[in-house]
Amino acid sequence: MNGNYLEFNVFFDIIGTIAFAISGAILGCKKKMDILGVIVLGLVTALGGGFIRDLVLGITPPKMFQNSTNAIISTLFSILVFIFYLQKSGFKNKNWIKIMNKFMIITDTIGLASFTITGMATAISLGHHQKFLLIFVGSITGVGGGMIRDVLAGTIPFIFREQIYAGACILGATVFLIARHFLSYQISMIICFFTVLIFRLLAVKKNWNLPRIVD
Amino acid sequence: MNGNYLEFNVFFDIIGTIAFAISGAILGCKKKMDILGVIVLGLVTALGGGFIRDLVLGITPPKMFQNSTNAIISTLFSILVFIFYLQKSGFKNKNWIKIMNKFMIITDTIGLASFTITGMATAISLGHHQKFLLIFVGSITGVGGGMIRDVLAGTIPFIFREQIYAGACILGATVFLIARHFLSYQISMIICFFTVLIFRLLAVKKNWNLPRIVD
Amino acid sequence: MNGNYLEFNVFFDIIGTIAFAISGAILGCKKKMDILGVIVLGLVTALGGGFIRDLVLGITPPKMFQNSTNAIISTLFSILVFIFYLQKSGFKNKNWIKIMNKFMIITDTIGLASFTITGMATAISLGHHQKFLLIFVGSITGVGGGMIRDVLAGTIPFIFREQIYAGACILGATVFLIARHFLSYQISMIICFFTVLIFRLLAVKKNWNLPRIVD
Repeated sequence: MNGNYLEFNVFFDIIGTIAFAISGAILGCKKKMDILGVIVLGLVTALGGGFIRDLVLGITPPKMFQNSTNAIISTLFSILVFIFYLQKSGFKNKNWIKIMNKFMIITDTIGLASFTITGMATAISLGHHQKFLLIFVGSITGVGGGMIRDVLAGTIPFIFREQIYAGACILGATVFLIARHFLSYQISMIICFFTVLIFRLLAVKKNWNLPRIVD
Repeated sequence: MNGNYLEFNVFFDIIGTIAFAISGAILGCKKKMDILGVIVLGLVTALGGGFIRDLVLGITPPKMFQNSTNAIISTLFSILVFIFYLQKSGFKNKNWIKIMNKFMIITDTIGLASFTITGMATAISLGHHQKFLLIFVGSITGVGGGMIRDVLAGTIPFIFREQIYAGACILGATVFLIARHFLSYQISMIICFFTVLIFRLLAVKKNWNLPRIVD
Repeated sequence: MNGNYLEFNVFFDIIGTIAFAISGAILGCKKKMDILGVIVLGLVTALGGGFIRDLVLGITPPKMFQNSTNAIISTLFSILVFIFYLQKSGFKNKNWIKIMNKFMIITDTIGLASFTITGMATAISLGHHQKFLLIFVGSITGVGGGMIRDVLAGTIPFIFREQIYAGACILGATVFLIARHFLSYQISMIICFFTVLIFRLLAVKKNWNLPRIVD
């Protein structure tokens, strides 16, 4: 663990913040919120996972309250999404709906993967090493922001809908814990990122459905 | 910062508790809850903001668990609202619906303004001085109780509906931080209170709408 | 307070975890979730109350992150519920709907009673003795998991529906605090458990309704 490793953590933190902000802002636009609503939904999505992570790890006040960078980044990207939506006059074109729905899933997945990493990395940097704790903190950090976004916007969280979701986090976190025995932290993080990303996007694409009650 | 300043903090804490309890109890009545549901919804609204504030600032157990005053005040006012509703036989009269809807917005705004102040004042009393942190803690304390109320009662939080809402908190908090350079803490608090109150109520009254997607 | 007392706390913790996991899994099945959704809803219900309890009492990371026992137990019972549901082909038979609805209320009540106890016992073990704090922590631990379950699954929490719910927790917690002046901790816990259980189930059975607005 060295400085380079912590820089990687910051890198994924920013990537995740941008991606989740966009996913929140898209949902806000879909729900016909005004610009402040869109910004707020972007913020809670982008900062929610880190908020839960810090509360869980006893970091008070949470980092998001100490550093405005992520909040500013999130606000800017939410505004960009809002402007883009205004220009495309929102939902009138069916093609745009489809594209934005796909884009929302992609950004949500990038956020999921990034925050799973920052959750584990933050826990490790505080001296936690228990595997179960790391996987759990990684997963809750990954799914937390999206969960708050969906509950606040009144839709059922992704985690309960069709796709493999929590499973992708748990798989990615486990792969990270195995990889770091053999590889550097940086490469393990990248492998974790793409594991979550590919696994979840494939699951959506191929419509992998787990067993469920058939009507 | 002196004793008088802390007394002011307690004053706004109680004002906010009463106002939010009433707003929660009104929503509970509108949702046809029984008296315990109404009391509980009043409680989570009145105590929710302070709960989030204390978790965020690392005050554990949160103050609401150490002192029953606010819980008792909240319970009493929720019962009063419930009795009032029973007497007016609830929703039968369209005039009463209108009046109660307005009254809910007014009490919600008083709670919003009061808790924005207590959020900042509590953070300052713990030695935090960073402007971004103070505005953020103030805003989350202000909007927290109402957000929990609306999510639990199954309605979309005010923060995502028509009115300028989070914006009023951020404006009030910023005004407070500017004012306290020139004026006493007490007067800065009062200015903050009326900034949030007037800005939000004007926005509702004048139906100030921020840009949004037009259908 | 001795070792035997702490063993009792663990006992109720496991009973509550199993019961809440089942209640969450049943709701997940009713909502046609896939198996991972059912497991996750079981987990948040089973672990949610303890999560809130630990955050409130300043235990970070919460115990559920340090010990995988409860997560594993919860997952196993959620899978069992899911298999059972698949075999009974879900909702096709009206009798099974009725039975599962009843079973969900019973398991929810067992979880409620168990976590009210573990909430108080954990607070006492940390040296808290204020009666109001103990009742409050007990109640929030009891109702927390079920509340998160219902909000995430998009149904109105039990606490706001027909039955006496928070009231049962508060009564049970109060009975515990009185009983422990005269009896051993273990017996006081058992009395608390059955007070919550019987009071809530009787309320549902007899359809005790508190005053509410009549349409």
